[in-house]
Amino acid sequence: MGMVGGGRGAFIGGVHRIAAAIDQQIELVCGAFSSDPEKSRLSGEDFYLPADRVYGSYEEMILREKELPEGERMDFISIVTPNHVHFGPAKLALENGFHVVCDKPLAFSVDEARQLVDLVEKSGLVFALTHNYTGYPMVKQARAMIREGKLGKIRKVVVEYPQGWLANAKEETDNKQASWRTDPSKSGLGGAMGDIGTHAENLAEYVTNLKITEVCADLTAFVEGRRLDDDANILLHFEGGAKGVLHCSQIAVGEENGLNIRVWGETGGLEWHQQEPNTLIYKRHEQPAIHYRTGVGELDPAAVAAQRVPPPGHPEGYLEAFANIYKNFAATVRARMEGREPTDIESDFPTVYDGLRGMRFVEVVVENSRSGEKWSRL
Amino acid sequence: MGMVGGGRGAFIGGVHRIAAAIDQQIELVCGAFSSDPEKSRLSGEDFYLPADRVYGSYEEMILREKELPEGERMDFISIVTPNHVHFGPAKLALENGFHVVCDKPLAFSVDEARQLVDLVEKSGLVFALTHNYTGYPMVKQARAMIREGKLGKIRKVVVEYPQGWLANAKEETDNKQASWRTDPSKSGLGGAMGDIGTHAENLAEYVTNLKITEVCADLTAFVEGRRLDDDANILLHFEGGAKGVLHCSQIAVGEENGLNIRVWGETGGLEWHQQEPNTLIYKRHEQPAIHYRTGVGELDPAAVAAQRVPPPGHPEGYLEAFANIYKNFAATVRARMEGREPTDIESDFPTVYDGLRGMRFVEVVVENSRSGEKWSRL
Amino acid sequence: MGMVGGGRGAFIGGVHRIAAAIDQQIELVCGAFSSDPEKSRLSGEDFYLPADRVYGSYEEMILREKELPEGERMDFISIVTPNHVHFGPAKLALENGFHVVCDKPLAFSVDEARQLVDLVEKSGLVFALTHNYTGYPMVKQARAMIREGKLGKIRKVVVEYPQGWLANAKEETDNKQASWRTDPSKSGLGGAMGDIGTHAENLAEYVTNLKITEVCADLTAFVEGRRLDDDANILLHFEGGAKGVLHCSQIAVGEENGLNIRVWGETGGLEWHQQEPNTLIYKRHEQPAIHYRTGVGELDPAAVAAQRVPPPGHPEGYLEAFANIYKNFAATVRARMEGREPTDIESDFPTVYDGLRGMRFVEVVVENSRSGEKWSRL
Amino acid sequence: MGMVGGGRGAFIGGVHRIAAAIDQQIELVCGAFSSDPEKSRLSGEDFYLPADRVYGSYEEMILREKELPEGERMDFISIVTPNHVHFGPAKLALENGFHVVCDKPLAFSVDEARQLVDLVEKSGLVFALTHNYTGYPMVKQARAMIREGKLGKIRKVVVEYPQGWLANAKEETDNKQASWRTDPSKSGLGGAMGDIGTHAENLAEYVTNLKITEVCADLTAFVEGRRLDDDANILLHFEGGAKGVLHCSQIAVGEENGLNIRVWGETGGLEWHQQEPNTLIYKRHEQPAIHYRTGVGELDPAAVAAQRVPPPGHPEGYLEAFANIYKNFAATVRARMEGREPTDIESDFPTVYDGLRGMRFVEVVVENSRSGEKWSRL
Repeated sequence: MGMVGGGRGAFIGGVHRIAAAIDQQIELVCGAFSSDPEKSRLSGEDFYLPADRVYGSYEEMILREKELPEGERMDFISIVTPNHVHFGPAKLALENGFHVVCDKPLAFSVDEARQLVDLVEKSGLVFALTHNYTGYPMVKQARAMIREGKLGKIRKVVVEYPQGWLANAKEETDNKQASWRTDPSKSGLGGAMGDIGTHAENLAEYVTNLKITEVCADLTAFVEGRRLDDDANILLHFEGGAKGVLHCSQIAVGEENGLNIRVWGETGGLEWHQQEPNTLIYKRHEQPAIHYRTGVGELDPAAVAAQRVPPPGHPEGYLEAFANIYKNFAATVRARMEGREPTDIESDFPTVYDGLRGMRFVEVVVENSRSGEKWSRL
Repeated sequence: MGMVGGGRGAFIGGVHRIAAAIDQQIELVCGAFSSDPEKSRLSGEDFYLPADRVYGSYEEMILREKELPEGERMDFISIVTPNHVHFGPAKLALENGFHVVCDKPLAFSVDEARQLVDLVEKSGLVFALTHNYTGYPMVKQARAMIREGKLGKIRKVVVEYPQGWLANAKEETDNKQASWRTDPSKSGLGGAMGDIGTHAENLAEYVTNLKITEVCADLTAFVEGRRLDDDANILLHFEGGAKGVLHCSQIAVGEENGLNIRVWGETGGLEWHQQEPNTLIYKRHEQPAIHYRTGVGELDPAAVAAQRVPPPGHPEGYLEAFANIYKNFAATVRARMEGREPTDIESDFPTVYDGLRGMRFVEVVVENSRSGEKWSRL
Repeated sequence: MGMVGGGRGAFIGGVHRIAAAIDQQIELVCGAFSSDPEKSRLSGEDFYLPADRVYGSYEEMILREKELPEGERMDFISIVTPNHVHFGPAKLALENGFHVVCDKPLAFSVDEARQLVDLVEKSGLVFALTHNYTGYPMVKQARAMIREGKLGKIRKVVVEYPQGWLANAKEETDNKQASWRTDPSKSGLGGAMGDIGTHAENLAEYVTNLKITEVCADLTAFVEGRRLDDDANILLHFEGGAKGVLHCSQIAVGEENGLNIRVWGETGGLEWHQQEPNTLIYKRHEQPAIHYRTGVGELDPAAVAAQRVPPPGHPEGYLEAFANIYKNFAATVRARMEGREPTDIESDFPTVYDGLRGMRFVEVVVENSRSGEKWSRL
Repeated sequence: MGMVGGGRGAFIGGVHRIAAAIDQQIELVCGAFSSDPEKSRLSGEDFYLPADRVYGSYEEMILREKELPEGERMDFISIVTPNHVHFGPAKLALENGFHVVCDKPLAFSVDEARQLVDLVEKSGLVFALTHNYTGYPMVKQARAMIREGKLGKIRKVVVEYPQGWLANAKEETDNKQASWRTDPSKSGLGGAMGDIGTHAENLAEYVTNLKITEVCADLTAFVEGRRLDDDANILLHFEGGAKGVLHCSQIAVGEENGLNIRVWGETGGLEWHQQEPNTLIYKRHEQPAIHYRTGVGELDPAAVAAQRVPPPGHPEGYLEAFANIYKNFAATVRARMEGREPTDIESDFPTVYDGLRGMRFVEVVVENSRSGEKWSRL
């Protein structure tokens, strides 16, 4: 693995490195950790990399690694830069034969996203987008139960993602994370929408196996001077007639990472909370609820495979869920190397198509919110 | 107290009788318990009433009681009939000098509601509407904390009320409660909206001290053949710039009475769940949350007054909250009898004005949902 | 009902009056509310009683009521005084033909308790002891499930009751509740043991249908100068080989009324918490847990009968559980009046035998704690 | 790192490897993964180790690695074998200059444990025992708060660890984990006591900073034919006068890994649950509780250092807590290499002394349970 971004002072880069390391199947072999070559060099030292595998730019990394002998050069790049620096390295990597792991959202614009889809399709390379919340075992269990019809036809979905960390104008302090996320030139069209709204959208579609078809949105920038939305309330229509609500916020004071989803079908319901991710509540009509737990009883193979500590009651957390994206991505890359099709479990990770949907979702939601239109098609 | 409705086989009548009895300040002295005089008579026997105080119709009750000497006749009526039989007895009672407790929604139409407001204003009589959920101590605490500025300016409100009991066509069985609630000729314009959506609306306005100004609604009747909404997703605008979401459902399989509210302001947040009503979570920016509990520590006087069992940890439930409406109503009636103004705590119960707002809310929401309009003013 | 104790400033008397009033089947007709006749008189006014039914002492009440014509005189007395004034009125009532409801613990000593058992047996009168926590629907459900073998043979019981209200020397302030509870001349042998330990013991035996056979106890008075235990840790042996732990405390700072019970048998487990009393968790071997809820699905008839608000999700609380003791007691008294045997559900309330067991439990535990003996037989 | 045990089919070895890998500061360089050399070899391949660093026995590994040049040879060994194979490799490693990480319990007997303490003292080497539950951020926060006096003088401790996985005679199936844990020749004196009871004991002492001084124990083997305890109920005395209860079980059907601790002092209380490890409830006298959360607000430096994902609400789990033992151990080893004293945070991990205490605790508890003695000194 070669990493783009994630040098000293970054946040998500460290998460990716842990996620890649946990299963001891992926090695960080090179990186362009910062647009500042000196900072990149120092970060490389932090990670015990040889000096000649630490590059001053992603272009340099990709082109130089390509020259290395197979078996020695990196197998894929991991892009952990702010949103506006996803497209460049992703494109160059795909053009030069490297598989890609990319942080979400996929790109800066729908147009960029479409180009990446084309490149993936042409190159046949493996592309993973780290919508990490779908990596939790109980999310996979939920998806499986819905696919198997345990809820009957889906009628209603409520997905929410309140956070509170941007309740004040943190971007006016020296908080790097806040600064780029609230800057349209770096974040793109969406503020909270791009940062966490796409996670909620992706989770809803992943769990229900249904696509959102129409949205009616009400976006707000509550903090004075903020140029991108920090709060969103959205009505949803799904294919097949299901309805729903998505709300997310970064000004919900005191909230941590409150990603929650509830789904009700004709014969059952499911409820899952990211902050207590090892429980999945299965609701039944006029019968008591069953509380599924990671590792307890018979679970879907995808949920079982997503679990690292077999005995139940040892909580698996965010990093393990994140690692599951890397694990399945790596297994798929390996399958390709071995000339075979990856299994369903191996190929169970978000791809460039999820990325394009997310970009499109943000675009439509932002436009709808600005317009007087009630419903906009996705 | 004289009761209209609530005979054998009814549901909410029994709740009203318990709520009135708990504090031993109100006595059931007469009733017209059913439109069927024989059924009314039998119900009267159940309640140990003398035969001459059990009436065959509400008209008979009101007119005959009026003839009784003061001190002997009922002081007020309690209306616990289906929605379409709220207006008649309420109007007649007010016209004949009786105070009124009425189950919600106030009436069958906005027009009826307006007439009742006029009658209350003209008569000077006391009118309570049993939006019972505002009777919980922790709801009163929430309202007080917001009024005192503990959350700063309010930005976002999420109120929800999922139920699952109408997930099937229960109205086609002999379930009396399901039948009239799904029948437009008895329930009015709204299905779930009228039955539980108004509770959610009332709770949001009570807690925040803010009026809803605009709505954007998506109502659905999911169960085949159902003529009124059984599910609603609504975007909200409040005075002062707060935004929000209200969703309620009667097809959310496996849900019981999931009335929940979350409010976030500039400096704090609150969260309350009806099913665990004695906890109120107070969220703070970058500080750990405080879990207020009924009876623990210093609470607002209205919350203290709403509590019956002083030592904390003895859960107070639905019936006690309901009884708080009766308790404050009775205290207000008594204050009037004593020729004094009721205190703030005594007059803390929902009135005919809340009823009118609820009727108007249902009307606007139903219209907005049918139209292509994005926002409709309330 | 005639009440002994419970005048102005008392705590548990008000709870009893509400519990008796809720179902509108019991009327407070007389009382000796205080040992101070003037205070008794004023309390009687509070309760709208005619002056001639308010007595200056329980002796006066019992003897004078006995003279009243049947149908007019009270049917039973309710004793809500401190522990040392339970025996006197109970004895006199039984000797004079009145049924009795008595707050727990039954008496001041095992010897008194035995006398009351004799009197009940001789008189054939109905005697209820208000171990109110067994009135909760989900406690009854737990008992039924264990009786039906859903857990297999019982192996382990953990019952606990932490409170924090006596963490300081509150008895040295003017707190009446604290004063008599920590005074051996009023409370008896046990402090926390008598006040709440007996509730825990009673709950464990009620739920499991098993008697405690041996105890090994470690009692402490943590607050300086306190003369009775304010904390207890006890190992338990049950008939049939089950083992367990009972711990209770009144110095567990910040705890409210944390009465909880967990039971495990060979094939299943149960967990119930008094502070969230409408949930009962049923645990299964290598299968996900089922969360039973008051009012949801098929429940034991005793649990169904103990519920007042049929739709689930409307929390039933402490007062309703307490009222269930009165309700079943009243139904049993009525059955006797009607000359028939009460049904199993009607006779489902704690009796004088539970009271004797509780007294004996306190006595043995206190003795064991003082001794160097490991195990003492009950 | 060189590993002893943990080959194919093992459980805790994989956990140790992940824990060591997460922070990318420790590399697995060699191993003796099984007493079966062929199995060891295959396991080495699984971990991408060169064949010449995979050994057939721990003796071979330690002696051969010692011959390698500094910088190339392993720095420490990690012992992940069943209990009866802890002492041998630990002793040999210490005698040959290698630091040691050892799974708990420390050894097979108190005598072995004492020998290891001596060896550590003589050699000056670093020794970590993986009482992993003390690695959770909120456990460290609890310890800090108690040390700072937030609870006042400690009065009561309740620590519990129910599991259900051995409710049946799983050792009679081919379950390897169950077999050795229930076999006195491999597990030692304690069954559940050694496996999980020591975790509870260690947690209680770590959090309170108090030593257990006396125990009164009731151990049982509920499953027929089982030779070691599978359930324990124990009364505790702590230095300074605190009292407590420790109960643990492996036959508590349906329980997962329910390690919980509650502590109450004169002025406050704390509650922590391993299955939801990122919350720590701080209880106050007659004030509402504060719910501390990993990453929220100002926390103790040790808690902050134990957290990997700075934004709160991203649950950290069992593996991260486990990794914190390795992280601090590695930092301490590095400090020694750099010739400096480790900081308080670096040296915050369980050591050989905790191991000796645990062994002694098991010994005394088992003896006490067999005897008629009430209290035995530790």
